[in-house]
Amino acid sequence: MSEIKNYILQNKERFLAELFELLRIPSVSANPSNSKDITKAADEIKKRLEEAGANNVEVCTTKGHPIVYGEKIMDTKLPTILVYGHYDVQPADPIELWENPPFEPIIKKTEIHPEGAIFARGSCDDKGQMYMHVKALEVMMKTKTLACNVKFMIEGEEEVGSVNLGTFVKENKEKLKADVILISDTGIIANDTPSITVGLRGLSYIEVEVTGPNRDLHSGLYGGSVANPINILCEMIAKLKDDKNHITIPGFYDEVETLSEADRIELSEAPFNLEEYKKALNLSDIHGEEGYTSMERVSIRPTLDVNGIWGGYIGEGAKTVIASKAYAKISMRLVPHQDSETITTLFSNYFKSIAPKAVTVKVIPHHGGAPYVTPTNSIGYQAAKQAMEDSFGKSPVPVRSGGSIPIVALFEQELGIKSVLMGFGLDSDAIHSPNEHYGIFNFYKGIETIPLFFHYFAKNFK
Amino acid sequence: MSEIKNYILQNKERFLAELFELLRIPSVSANPSNSKDITKAADEIKKRLEEAGANNVEVCTTKGHPIVYGEKIMDTKLPTILVYGHYDVQPADPIELWENPPFEPIIKKTEIHPEGAIFARGSCDDKGQMYMHVKALEVMMKTKTLACNVKFMIEGEEEVGSVNLGTFVKENKEKLKADVILISDTGIIANDTPSITVGLRGLSYIEVEVTGPNRDLHSGLYGGSVANPINILCEMIAKLKDDKNHITIPGFYDEVETLSEADRIELSEAPFNLEEYKKALNLSDIHGEEGYTSMERVSIRPTLDVNGIWGGYIGEGAKTVIASKAYAKISMRLVPHQDSETITTLFSNYFKSIAPKAVTVKVIPHHGGAPYVTPTNSIGYQAAKQAMEDSFGKSPVPVRSGGSIPIVALFEQELGIKSVLMGFGLDSDAIHSPNEHYGIFNFYKGIETIPLFFHYFAKNFK
Repeated sequence: MSEIKNYILQNKERFLAELFELLRIPSVSANPSNSKDITKAADEIKKRLEEAGANNVEVCTTKGHPIVYGEKIMDTKLPTILVYGHYDVQPADPIELWENPPFEPIIKKTEIHPEGAIFARGSCDDKGQMYMHVKALEVMMKTKTLACNVKFMIEGEEEVGSVNLGTFVKENKEKLKADVILISDTGIIANDTPSITVGLRGLSYIEVEVTGPNRDLHSGLYGGSVANPINILCEMIAKLKDDKNHITIPGFYDEVETLSEADRIELSEAPFNLEEYKKALNLSDIHGEEGYTSMERVSIRPTLDVNGIWGGYIGEGAKTVIASKAYAKISMRLVPHQDSETITTLFSNYFKSIAPKAVTVKVIPHHGGAPYVTPTNSIGYQAAKQAMEDSFGKSPVPVRSGGSIPIVALFEQELGIKSVLMGFGLDSDAIHSPNEHYGIFNFYKGIETIPLFFHYFAKNFK
Repeated sequence: MSEIKNYILQNKERFLAELFELLRIPSVSANPSNSKDITKAADEIKKRLEEAGANNVEVCTTKGHPIVYGEKIMDTKLPTILVYGHYDVQPADPIELWENPPFEPIIKKTEIHPEGAIFARGSCDDKGQMYMHVKALEVMMKTKTLACNVKFMIEGEEEVGSVNLGTFVKENKEKLKADVILISDTGIIANDTPSITVGLRGLSYIEVEVTGPNRDLHSGLYGGSVANPINILCEMIAKLKDDKNHITIPGFYDEVETLSEADRIELSEAPFNLEEYKKALNLSDIHGEEGYTSMERVSIRPTLDVNGIWGGYIGEGAKTVIASKAYAKISMRLVPHQDSETITTLFSNYFKSIAPKAVTVKVIPHHGGAPYVTPTNSIGYQAAKQAMEDSFGKSPVPVRSGGSIPIVALFEQELGIKSVLMGFGLDSDAIHSPNEHYGIFNFYKGIETIPLFFHYFAKNFK
């Protein structure tokens, strides 16, 4: 495999320059004014896939943002790996908290990344991780080591719930036929502690609107005699959890599995330092569901978080107004067996039931997604484990992640294919936040590990 | 008093023409580009006061907009009435919602004002009401019926918080010596239902900031294991009231007086139609403190309202973020004996005490104001009552207003003088809104009632 390492070494500056070019395109899927950038990013990926050696590369239109498809079929007798990734990114807000412009990538050293990290929106999630696969293809083609057939499916709506991916998958089952799906959109515990995500939480995302009076009112003349929708919304949100931080929605925990003591012990073996965790986030204390550790709270337990709230006067100074309406965006992370649509319905019914008669409530479901588990005894998991053992010199830890990649459950359901979540990001990469970054070490380590995965997958498959 | 009525009748067109001239000056105190208009309005009032018969009229400079002072001392043995009013107006925005230009007064008939109403910014608040006092002086001088000494203090910063009035009052205590302060900057219930405002609520206005983690986090990776500042803020706001909508801040009600059954019965005599109230605001139900009527909730009871809230992602679509910070603006309307600064301190201590250890809380006090009550057994109130009985042919209803006029408490504190709030506006006059207007009936009724007040005040004073 030294020829692969050599090739990477010889081309590392160019690989980075190409990624920078992609990061400069503000392909924010949530923002309609960025639609040209979305097209530009898709075209760029098409070009790069072709340069790397892929065939039949096309930008497939959908009802939303396009999906880039490409493939390299070496031999129909060889196993096929379907690579999934996404080229769209989260909005950069709050933009004033970025130390450098979010779409002008630069390299800066950090404590965790002494070799430097790429600071830009999408550097880790998921342009940087997705582009590792494009470059890995180039490496395998140039070094003539491509051991499997490969297909690419790179979408542009992951950050807005992959709304059109389901249809695309259903309509292209033959084209997408593969033996495993390989995804790098997760992370490792640390650069010296590789890990593989074996469980993902599902998601139910909801927007609520509470209306009191039909117009904004003067709080002096009306305060006390009408329902203030902001106060009411706060009271309703407070009622969603009890004083032990259990979620109070009736039926919410019905399908949640209780892990055995043995399982909990295995999970607790992943290294976790509470003091460091608190220090990194500047937390005076942790907070969460009674009876569970921090690691359990973010992995095996479902959660409910308000992701945004607004209403009334939010400018400088004081305005004595009673708003007509108040809003919140609320999401729930789900664990295996919890169904996203069921939970959305349970939430909706309960939320409406706790509203006082003096207000009206609207509940608008956004996207959702099912939870997922990768079996550690599968060929795919074993290939990822062997690949990481070779590249990191250490066996990876199997980890349940708190995040959600709803499409992973969709792939299994529609295509009958299991996914392997071999990501290379770090928790500290600030994805979805200002100053998102991705270690240069991690970028190259990914490009080095992917061909090893192909190698072991072909080998195990026989 | 028929000679007073006759004089008004003979001069009514001129009175209106003079008011129109004043209304044409856009004396918007909040807008620096109107500073020349502020000066022009002050000079105009000086001229009109002199014409009406006042002496020692002067435009007193302050650090902000000037205060017009004038007086007519008949006999130092007679009681003295200090008239307060303001010549500055609110900005006209949103200007596109005015049916006629805001500074080109015209008369139009409305359902409530079949005799016509003056449509212009400031027509009611407070140029129209203030100018009734200037014309009442003229009437009393010409008819030789001025029964008290009178002093005028007409300021130009009421709409921006009377920022320099406190200093002026402190520096001119001797000059402003009086036995009562008479103010027309409030309203009556209806043109056939006179009323006098006897209570104003005070105000305590606070901004709060709740900080969880030191940066925005991905809700999948961290959800469940860190304190979400939005959830926490909602829980803290919910804790500010119990399930009977009583405010839970310890000590909050300590100084609130319990009204006697007789007082509550008197207050309940003000006409109020609950069904019409609900219909006007499109409320499916009312909401408020248990054990009190809607009218009591907005007058004799203190309240707590969130005037604004914000945090996290508030754009289109979904973003799975745990915000680092959440904010709210919270105000409390206070009733007599509740001290604004004390309440602010009680709030601040309690709010910090209910914060879980996992967040940090900042409490930033904005402006406040003391509540105020005019005793109905005072000479001033009785004089206003008798005056209105004569002019309206009906006894006025004493009304507690939910709003705050902080200067009234200031006058009592600095000058030791009680104020009588004998205003003639209507709730429907749209003050501070587009298409502000003031009934011609109300304008003349005020000019007619003020001399009666002087008459009864002198009589009661003996």
